[in-house]
Amino acid sequence: MAIKSAEEYVESVKNQDPKIHQGGKRIKDLFKNPTTKSVIDATAKMYELAMDPTFEATMTAQSHLIDEKINRSLHVNGSIADLRKRADMAQLTAQKVGTCNYRCVGCDAINTMASVTWEMDRDLSTDYNERFNEYLKYLQKNDLACSGAMTDAKGDRSKRPGGQEDPDVYVHVSEKRKDGIVVRGAKVNQSGAIAANETFVIPGQALREGEEEFAVAFAVPNGAKGITYICQYTPYTAERNMAEDIHELGNPVYGQRETALMVFDDVFVPWERVFMCGEVKYTRQLVARFAKIHRMNCGGACKVGFADLLIGATQLLVEYAGLSKVAHVREKITDMIAISETARACTLASAVEGTEEPEGSGVFLPDDMFGNVAKLNIANGFWEMMKIAGDLAGGLVVTMPSERELKNPETMEYMEKFFKTTVPAEKRLRITKFLQHWIAGQHGPGTWHGAGPVQAQRVMVARLANLEEKKDMAKELAGLNEDESDN
Amino acid sequence: MAIKSAEEYVESVKNQDPKIHQGGKRIKDLFKNPTTKSVIDATAKMYELAMDPTFEATMTAQSHLIDEKINRSLHVNGSIADLRKRADMAQLTAQKVGTCNYRCVGCDAINTMASVTWEMDRDLSTDYNERFNEYLKYLQKNDLACSGAMTDAKGDRSKRPGGQEDPDVYVHVSEKRKDGIVVRGAKVNQSGAIAANETFVIPGQALREGEEEFAVAFAVPNGAKGITYICQYTPYTAERNMAEDIHELGNPVYGQRETALMVFDDVFVPWERVFMCGEVKYTRQLVARFAKIHRMNCGGACKVGFADLLIGATQLLVEYAGLSKVAHVREKITDMIAISETARACTLASAVEGTEEPEGSGVFLPDDMFGNVAKLNIANGFWEMMKIAGDLAGGLVVTMPSERELKNPETMEYMEKFFKTTVPAEKRLRITKFLQHWIAGQHGPGTWHGAGPVQAQRVMVARLANLEEKKDMAKELAGLNEDESDN
Amino acid sequence: MAIKSAEEYVESVKNQDPKIHQGGKRIKDLFKNPTTKSVIDATAKMYELAMDPTFEATMTAQSHLIDEKINRSLHVNGSIADLRKRADMAQLTAQKVGTCNYRCVGCDAINTMASVTWEMDRDLSTDYNERFNEYLKYLQKNDLACSGAMTDAKGDRSKRPGGQEDPDVYVHVSEKRKDGIVVRGAKVNQSGAIAANETFVIPGQALREGEEEFAVAFAVPNGAKGITYICQYTPYTAERNMAEDIHELGNPVYGQRETALMVFDDVFVPWERVFMCGEVKYTRQLVARFAKIHRMNCGGACKVGFADLLIGATQLLVEYAGLSKVAHVREKITDMIAISETARACTLASAVEGTEEPEGSGVFLPDDMFGNVAKLNIANGFWEMMKIAGDLAGGLVVTMPSERELKNPETMEYMEKFFKTTVPAEKRLRITKFLQHWIAGQHGPGTWHGAGPVQAQRVMVARLANLEEKKDMAKELAGLNEDESDN
Amino acid sequence: MAIKSAEEYVESVKNQDPKIHQGGKRIKDLFKNPTTKSVIDATAKMYELAMDPTFEATMTAQSHLIDEKINRSLHVNGSIADLRKRADMAQLTAQKVGTCNYRCVGCDAINTMASVTWEMDRDLSTDYNERFNEYLKYLQKNDLACSGAMTDAKGDRSKRPGGQEDPDVYVHVSEKRKDGIVVRGAKVNQSGAIAANETFVIPGQALREGEEEFAVAFAVPNGAKGITYICQYTPYTAERNMAEDIHELGNPVYGQRETALMVFDDVFVPWERVFMCGEVKYTRQLVARFAKIHRMNCGGACKVGFADLLIGATQLLVEYAGLSKVAHVREKITDMIAISETARACTLASAVEGTEEPEGSGVFLPDDMFGNVAKLNIANGFWEMMKIAGDLAGGLVVTMPSERELKNPETMEYMEKFFKTTVPAEKRLRITKFLQHWIAGQHGPGTWHGAGPVQAQRVMVARLANLEEKKDMAKELAGLNEDESDN
Repeated sequence: MAIKSAEEYVESVKNQDPKIHQGGKRIKDLFKNPTTKSVIDATAKMYELAMDPTFEATMTAQSHLIDEKINRSLHVNGSIADLRKRADMAQLTAQKVGTCNYRCVGCDAINTMASVTWEMDRDLSTDYNERFNEYLKYLQKNDLACSGAMTDAKGDRSKRPGGQEDPDVYVHVSEKRKDGIVVRGAKVNQSGAIAANETFVIPGQALREGEEEFAVAFAVPNGAKGITYICQYTPYTAERNMAEDIHELGNPVYGQRETALMVFDDVFVPWERVFMCGEVKYTRQLVARFAKIHRMNCGGACKVGFADLLIGATQLLVEYAGLSKVAHVREKITDMIAISETARACTLASAVEGTEEPEGSGVFLPDDMFGNVAKLNIANGFWEMMKIAGDLAGGLVVTMPSERELKNPETMEYMEKFFKTTVPAEKRLRITKFLQHWIAGQHGPGTWHGAGPVQAQRVMVARLANLEEKKDMAKELAGLNEDESDN
Repeated sequence: MAIKSAEEYVESVKNQDPKIHQGGKRIKDLFKNPTTKSVIDATAKMYELAMDPTFEATMTAQSHLIDEKINRSLHVNGSIADLRKRADMAQLTAQKVGTCNYRCVGCDAINTMASVTWEMDRDLSTDYNERFNEYLKYLQKNDLACSGAMTDAKGDRSKRPGGQEDPDVYVHVSEKRKDGIVVRGAKVNQSGAIAANETFVIPGQALREGEEEFAVAFAVPNGAKGITYICQYTPYTAERNMAEDIHELGNPVYGQRETALMVFDDVFVPWERVFMCGEVKYTRQLVARFAKIHRMNCGGACKVGFADLLIGATQLLVEYAGLSKVAHVREKITDMIAISETARACTLASAVEGTEEPEGSGVFLPDDMFGNVAKLNIANGFWEMMKIAGDLAGGLVVTMPSERELKNPETMEYMEKFFKTTVPAEKRLRITKFLQHWIAGQHGPGTWHGAGPVQAQRVMVARLANLEEKKDMAKELAGLNEDESDN
Repeated sequence: MAIKSAEEYVESVKNQDPKIHQGGKRIKDLFKNPTTKSVIDATAKMYELAMDPTFEATMTAQSHLIDEKINRSLHVNGSIADLRKRADMAQLTAQKVGTCNYRCVGCDAINTMASVTWEMDRDLSTDYNERFNEYLKYLQKNDLACSGAMTDAKGDRSKRPGGQEDPDVYVHVSEKRKDGIVVRGAKVNQSGAIAANETFVIPGQALREGEEEFAVAFAVPNGAKGITYICQYTPYTAERNMAEDIHELGNPVYGQRETALMVFDDVFVPWERVFMCGEVKYTRQLVARFAKIHRMNCGGACKVGFADLLIGATQLLVEYAGLSKVAHVREKITDMIAISETARACTLASAVEGTEEPEGSGVFLPDDMFGNVAKLNIANGFWEMMKIAGDLAGGLVVTMPSERELKNPETMEYMEKFFKTTVPAEKRLRITKFLQHWIAGQHGPGTWHGAGPVQAQRVMVARLANLEEKKDMAKELAGLNEDESDN
Repeated sequence: MAIKSAEEYVESVKNQDPKIHQGGKRIKDLFKNPTTKSVIDATAKMYELAMDPTFEATMTAQSHLIDEKINRSLHVNGSIADLRKRADMAQLTAQKVGTCNYRCVGCDAINTMASVTWEMDRDLSTDYNERFNEYLKYLQKNDLACSGAMTDAKGDRSKRPGGQEDPDVYVHVSEKRKDGIVVRGAKVNQSGAIAANETFVIPGQALREGEEEFAVAFAVPNGAKGITYICQYTPYTAERNMAEDIHELGNPVYGQRETALMVFDDVFVPWERVFMCGEVKYTRQLVARFAKIHRMNCGGACKVGFADLLIGATQLLVEYAGLSKVAHVREKITDMIAISETARACTLASAVEGTEEPEGSGVFLPDDMFGNVAKLNIANGFWEMMKIAGDLAGGLVVTMPSERELKNPETMEYMEKFFKTTVPAEKRLRITKFLQHWIAGQHGPGTWHGAGPVQAQRVMVARLANLEEKKDMAKELAGLNEDESDN
């Protein structure tokens, strides 16, 4: 059955045994560690939403490969309508978990490789696309949670992949065998692979001739031999791990986005799971296409979903404090909305202006310029919204005592007395804590760097603009057209 | 013939004899005054573009009334595709004249009244829509240039229309006759009526019971008895009027946007040209619909077209100075592009999310939120782009001598010697002058207030946001759902 | 001896036994809880700096009361030179601990009350100033760490202190006795009292007639009967409490600013420690003077010191990554510097334009307008700097694994291999963690609300501007002077 | 007598006969051309203010050379008190004329050369300083209006002065004679020389060995043989030249800042007026010192004076419209004030932290960092203030008819009727026109480029910051100090 329930997904995770470290220790049971548990819960929510009739249209699609309804996270976008729904899904899931949905990078990697393998086969008579389709059918039929991995460790950034002291700082092929390849290296900032069933790995940058070993795309099952995950460890990890009750936390169930360093220590990958191996010439479009897809979804739509939560929570808190009619408060809420709706518009424009790429492939990609400006606007805008939310939330957003004090007999009365506003202390503390999650933690840099740092978007924006056309328009009006010769 | 040539339009203007004042003097011949001439030239350009095969798809449409191809400026949008083309037209015409196209407000007033008259007839069994369609057929069949007028003089803004010392500060019905009505008052900031054939007049704000006399929408032919135009007079007016050769000017042919105070001193309007008369209840949607249409077109798309010119000219000047490779220069050009593309995306989103309003009317209106953020972004962004262009243009953009000096035997050699860069002085001076037109003149406030001041957009953005939905999302995640009762 | 060593201060804390709760539990030993320990360490650093010859001129002053050299934190500013040094101290201590110095509010409350008690005695023939000076001599002679408390719990903010359901949400006098007063209520966001020797308590807002019970200023020794502290509990608290080695933390020794809810449950205060009791008329200047002092010091100078650390760390990280020559990176570092130096200039201007207030009191206060703009600029600027630092730090700033992994035999080799850049992994991780402390935690809202939320500064800026003078200047130039009569 | 009256100055101008062109024509009589007349009027105002007892302390100083009271525009700053008064003068004169005072660049060039000639004499045993002092005594004794010229034409900016096709694009020595030198070239953007008595000419950039001919500083009397001025010609020039009454204009008496291209066509300069000739090594500090002085005065203080006018006029207009109590209007006025006061604080800080440079020279220069941030803030801030003023002024600021219409019998009644608010039409039109002068003209780019373009300030800010010190602070706190060796 191509649509699995959340329970079935959870069951599948129990059968996996990945090597995971966090805070200096091995995690034996993902379900017992509260932080890794939050990743499972967020991923499970994706399955749950797909089965919910309210969200079905957004969360599922009709496969072009297996003639079944599938989770949209495994769907290849075949039309502009698909692109719009894909962006809708990114927005919806962000609203529902307030953190990463952990299937997004995988989905966008799948779409990227659908396009690139088709192109390679067309040009090079390879059979990558066929392998890819077989693999994708397997994912779809079993509704597997598939994460994605892209960013290499990079080492000394003034040097190319091939010029590093230690070649392992970029994932690469260390051996080619008859039955498959062996890969070494590590991907950083990897989201969700620890609780996924599969991970799709693609190169993190365009490569040149001579860098063939780094031009490798493949898929690995979770827990494959040689893979080690070293999880991020932030103050939020500590807080969650120490919590006596998840309701003490800002985003109780789903938490912050959790990532890991994903180490590949001579991992064997059979050929049927290898989708690029040495074709450096195609890495440029691979990276460019992934970027344009991911900027619409993760860069744009997902953050708009986050913004809805941030705005909603700020408005709630302002109402709880009895300040919602104050003029400057309303102006600031308006600022937040305008920022968020701008990014929503850019995301939509990106989907609407999507095109089939390459022509004939059947794969639709969003418009690049609009995807890039979606990300640019929300990256800057998210900090602006955080600032406003922090303004309206008051100092309490960083000075609040633990909700545990509400159960501490020595302090509970004081807490109830002094944190009561127009609502009881508990409500006020919870929404304040929820805001802390958004504005005093990882979301600023997370939004900035997710789908690539802002400078990458700026480079693309500059590259995509047709300056010649604009210059011609100006010349025509300025009366500079007669004498083209001397310019 | 429903598509007229530029020459035919010009001929039609010659037959009109409006009462126009400028700089304290009566203008007898619009063609002889260089400033009023620029309005004719810009309007004529709209006719020219409609006949140009390159732009035909954008500039023309198939009428739903007369079964002929018509200029899109007279078309009622009947689909999302129409809305997209309408926005494209706004952008294109801005690129082609670098100033107001002078048919935009008329077009948007027509679309507004197509919707509102339909609704009034449905609800009130009036025959406004029928009259309106008859009038529109007349415009379409004769391809008449139709401008629009909306903003009243307003007087003391702390008082309502009905509460003013002098009721004339709002256009109103001073007498109802069997054959028509008599109107008094004035509209400010009116663009292009002096060189149009017709002007469509609508109320400037939502009205209440008791304010029926101000709830009046009608059309007047140019030169109707009782109408006087008092033209704006800016430094640019003076410069143009004193120019010996239009190439001395920044936007030689089309100049700055020219407006006038349009005075109605007991103007008679026959009933067949009256499309609302006293229905205060419908003024709210009249104003709201006009705003949403005009924000997409004038607020958004038009300014994106201007931005293309501004960016193109800045890039040209930077290249002329040999600075186009400098890192911070490139970053700044990128900033300009990102601003402009953001507004372009918002405009497109506004069209794409358009809807029929009211249902059954056949009239499609753009999405309100996205139209408002399009305007908001470009209003702020235009000042930012002006600043950047002013930065890159150097002080010369405001200190340059007249191009006349290039013909002055006593100074021409100095001019050629000292203003030469990688291009001859003339080229550099022309593009610098073109930039002066954009950044040292009327465009900042013009962009800000065109389609309504920014505060109006902010009010709409606040009103359109579904805060309840956002609050619910936040509550669900924050664990605040159980006890709805006490909130 | 009026200058105590850090050791002597630490000894004094050991002799205190305050009632402190954190995370739902009583803290018995401040030195054993890593978070409360950080408050002691930061406070101790103030003593250490005062004894360091390099910083002596900044950190100490000559008392006007006891003719001894004292810690500047207990000094009443008697000249512009004093104000400059006071601001320098705020900047220096911020640079040295990267968190609150915990004596700042106390110092500014002392200066406020030096001025206000002098004025009350002058006007009302009270003896508050005498009491105050006696108390201050006691502090100075024993070099006591004195914190300050101002912000009340406030309850329903749409109501005045007197109109609250529960009067305790504002600190107030519940009983007046012959030998002293009894106070009830709570102060929120209190910084450092848990590890101070004394706390100076002042009203948090201007009061009106009828609100006499809330017009109370007094001092309490730490651990006085009836006082309970409920500490803030943030993710950073959890992380510090769980750390195996403080070097795993971002600001290892001094941590984040720690605050507490300070509850006064019928605390007795003898008259010699009461410095205002019912004089509502003087609360306005009390609050205004505290604000102007604290905006220069905490609002301005302190945050400039933080900015130095933030800029320094960002530059270091950029160098470690080999990116310090990249053009856009340099531009961004420049942005950070410009923001920081702007606030530094405003702070300096605030000191330089200080005046004696009230005249004859011998107390110098900084300029209000410049203090307010110092705060305004850095509040907005800090978020901007956080954004830039987050940009340049890369995603790692929120995704980095724990430094413990460097000691975990199963992961240490991977960590060293994959996080090495031009420097070993440990260095890179430490500076990244240090940046995490600044940009992914409490500093955004902390900087915003410290010394009062930004809207409070805006209100003051509007109030302090001499608009009449500016209007006259404009009128004179615009030729509007002749006929003053009709305006 | 060392303080001349405005009348005496005017008389002196009548005796001069400079070669001036404007709009392609020779200007024979500066007093008859309304634009050049505005330059005389503004310059004359400086004389008037110096004689006004209210402004005497700001406008005059005691000469260190001739033991007489002199106009501060000819004074060498000898103390921090002098620097503060110099900045005050810049602010005051800006408030009084709303345009350039035309003696500012001359004053700052004098201060620069006082410092640099002293240093050259000290190092090179030249007698430049003696010559300079003699010349300065002459200026002071006769209270001569002295303008300054710095920016060269530059030609192809990718090439050095020595590498240009035409060496004349930089002012240079074309011949050295026994009695003096002959100079060729042109300075652009020159303010006020046409109506000054003298002009001080200095190099526009740091020069290298081999570029000795360009390292030339000298003074010329107005009308010297070989000098031609080609005036700027903007829309404002045209408007002023066409005005029937100066009250039709935005800044009726003083207008916009007027500049000219100042051509040196083999101008002979006797040695006693040459203050640098070939000492390329000293051009670096010459340029740097001029920049730091001029950024405080022209970059900072002057624009703060302009801001006062802009704020005052905006507030007036808002009151005229009856909108001064509206919340968002007040917030926007607050924004304007905060911007302006920030720059005022930076300017003050720049003066207060001034130092003698070189030590022993007796010449005090402002602090460089604070001068640069003063300029940076106001350059960005001026555009922001323009935007706000344009917002609050309404569209009328660019669409208003001429005030002449108030005297036109055919339109006067309409004008009075429709432009009346809470004040008569004339008042409203005048203040609107005054705002037009500020926000729809040359002030944006003028503020940006005056005292050097913003990028120049950014370069200086980056250079002046002590990043090493900041890095050390961060390292100390981050626990990175132990192992300095490996970094």
